[in-house]
Amino acid sequence: MSLFHFDILASDGKARRGRVTTAHGTFETPAFMATATAATIKGTLPDLAREAGAELAICNTYHLMLRPTAERVARLGGLHAFMDWPGPIVTDSGGFQVMSLAKLRTLNENGVTFRSHIDGSKHILTPERSMEIQNLLDSDITMCFDECTAFPATHEQAEQSMLLSMRWAERCKKAFQPRDGYALFGINQGNVFPDLRHTSAAILNDLNPEGFGIGGLAIGEGQESMFATLDETIPALTPEKPRYLMGVGRPDDIVGAVLRGIDMFDCVMPTRSGRTGQAFTRRGTVNIRNARHLDDPRPLDETCSCPACTRYNRAYLHHLFRNEEMLGPILLTLHNIHYYQRLLKGLRDAIEAHTLETYVADFYEHQALGDLAALS
Amino acid sequence: MSLFHFDILASDGKARRGRVTTAHGTFETPAFMATATAATIKGTLPDLAREAGAELAICNTYHLMLRPTAERVARLGGLHAFMDWPGPIVTDSGGFQVMSLAKLRTLNENGVTFRSHIDGSKHILTPERSMEIQNLLDSDITMCFDECTAFPATHEQAEQSMLLSMRWAERCKKAFQPRDGYALFGINQGNVFPDLRHTSAAILNDLNPEGFGIGGLAIGEGQESMFATLDETIPALTPEKPRYLMGVGRPDDIVGAVLRGIDMFDCVMPTRSGRTGQAFTRRGTVNIRNARHLDDPRPLDETCSCPACTRYNRAYLHHLFRNEEMLGPILLTLHNIHYYQRLLKGLRDAIEAHTLETYVADFYEHQALGDLAALS
Repeated sequence: MSLFHFDILASDGKARRGRVTTAHGTFETPAFMATATAATIKGTLPDLAREAGAELAICNTYHLMLRPTAERVARLGGLHAFMDWPGPIVTDSGGFQVMSLAKLRTLNENGVTFRSHIDGSKHILTPERSMEIQNLLDSDITMCFDECTAFPATHEQAEQSMLLSMRWAERCKKAFQPRDGYALFGINQGNVFPDLRHTSAAILNDLNPEGFGIGGLAIGEGQESMFATLDETIPALTPEKPRYLMGVGRPDDIVGAVLRGIDMFDCVMPTRSGRTGQAFTRRGTVNIRNARHLDDPRPLDETCSCPACTRYNRAYLHHLFRNEEMLGPILLTLHNIHYYQRLLKGLRDAIEAHTLETYVADFYEHQALGDLAALS
Repeated sequence: MSLFHFDILASDGKARRGRVTTAHGTFETPAFMATATAATIKGTLPDLAREAGAELAICNTYHLMLRPTAERVARLGGLHAFMDWPGPIVTDSGGFQVMSLAKLRTLNENGVTFRSHIDGSKHILTPERSMEIQNLLDSDITMCFDECTAFPATHEQAEQSMLLSMRWAERCKKAFQPRDGYALFGINQGNVFPDLRHTSAAILNDLNPEGFGIGGLAIGEGQESMFATLDETIPALTPEKPRYLMGVGRPDDIVGAVLRGIDMFDCVMPTRSGRTGQAFTRRGTVNIRNARHLDDPRPLDETCSCPACTRYNRAYLHHLFRNEEMLGPILLTLHNIHYYQRLLKGLRDAIEAHTLETYVADFYEHQALGDLAALS
């Protein structure tokens, strides 16, 4: 079994084109993960997401520890077999979800005690337990257990929170069980304060994990502030390691972050939006529920190769959502996964060809066009 | 374009093995249709249903006339293009649904006036309008507009209702626009009264449609009574035409009906049950929501080739339903479609091989076993 490694194959400005090798195969970067929170990509068979180009899936420690439990997944052979995803899997540490979903939570130096949002049962999550769970799940990329600082936060609050996350990262590093092809990623915190991001980066660089998450962004600070924080943070991280911007984002967030040197992304947006009828296209977003599509014989995006665009017209997709038919969410989920994967493929190709500037200009130009005019 | 025709390729006792040729290709009989009420097979992409063996889809006049309307489907190129089903399509006439779903309905000699169950809008459905709608939808097999007699009904009520349906069938025949490869099926009625079924059969034989529906069964009369009615009805119908038992049924209903000479079936059961966690297997039904599956590493049915059975275990399927994940209904819908298609394939093969008796005995033997014992 090969060791976990990251190869930078090309670069264009600050953007990198790379390949990550794990115990369960490789994935090309910049990469957008398939969101499989509860060990399923909502609304689709995993094969169809792979066909769209997804190589890496992300599951969630918090959700899986409650149901079906990490011990059960381990007894059943680990996440790869359980969810039929033979490729690489990242697991989020549960730090974000325990603060946003769990009830009656109390946080102290040791970790977080909380009650399940599902059945009120009591649980404790610590850095050590998060490492144990992610090991039981057989995740290829384990994320450090951290505290996602609230936004807005004062410098003092953000500093205390970041320092706690860094102490937890050290405990994670100690508790993480090294295995060939498996990686631990540290998570940079510090809110929107450059000095805190720098301090966090320095601590993590010393800790020497296999890669870096950048956490605590896309939680209300706005794109400009997020990009400014990336501009401060990225140069402070050991450059030869993969950089994963957690929970981001919209297509233009991703384009801007790739330009700044981000290698990995995850976001619920393509699948969640797909379920509610919002499609991402080259020409911006389309709400297929809108009555303007009732008689529209045109595909959602004539340049897209997904089943929704190659086999159906807008009138049919509209019909499905109007009638609350399951095939509507299935098709728009697939479309959005295709859209995101194609966007990332385009970015990778452009970095290789050193044409990223042109690619990005074209991206913004098409987004600015807006959707096709309604038929008269 | 070839004419619509039905070739009986083999028989075993009263059971027939045949092939129906339509304007949009052929299907093998005995056939079980893919239920696509509102122009979508609930919970799956049509490709996956075709891969499972489904060759024929059934859509519904009542649902489609309300949304998206037959005129809109016609403008968009007909049902085949609209729903990406290039193969043969049957449309139900709307007679059953208008009586079971619509509001404030009034029935007279002319037809049925009713209000939509969706938005209360007023509509009228007559034999002529039903033919026009099914023509606009571009259905390969048009069903006559009929009244589904309530159960129980007196002989007098059943006779009046049957005679009305027969007068409507004559109007349907006049209104139906013959086209190469397209068929009109008459629908035999008469409740559970043999003399009424005989009268209805004689009238329909004179009317000379391309095939026969047998309607008004599986509405509460019980399997024994249904089979007795089939035994009376089938011999009274012109033998060289396909016989379609409408809305039936459970696996053992289908086996019994094939033994009696039925060629075509439709039923919501495999897809509807799949969405609620009930799976059909060789060893009877399995409720995957049951806690006994929580740790079960075995497939739902080790002999099944569907994605749910070849890629996942019971514990995973249980996990999906417990978490209300869309993939649960998707996988169990696919499993049930596979199960039904495999059952019909087995029946067809057995008729060809003149081994139907053995096949049916084996079917009942396995059904009687019940599901696998729970793991201790």
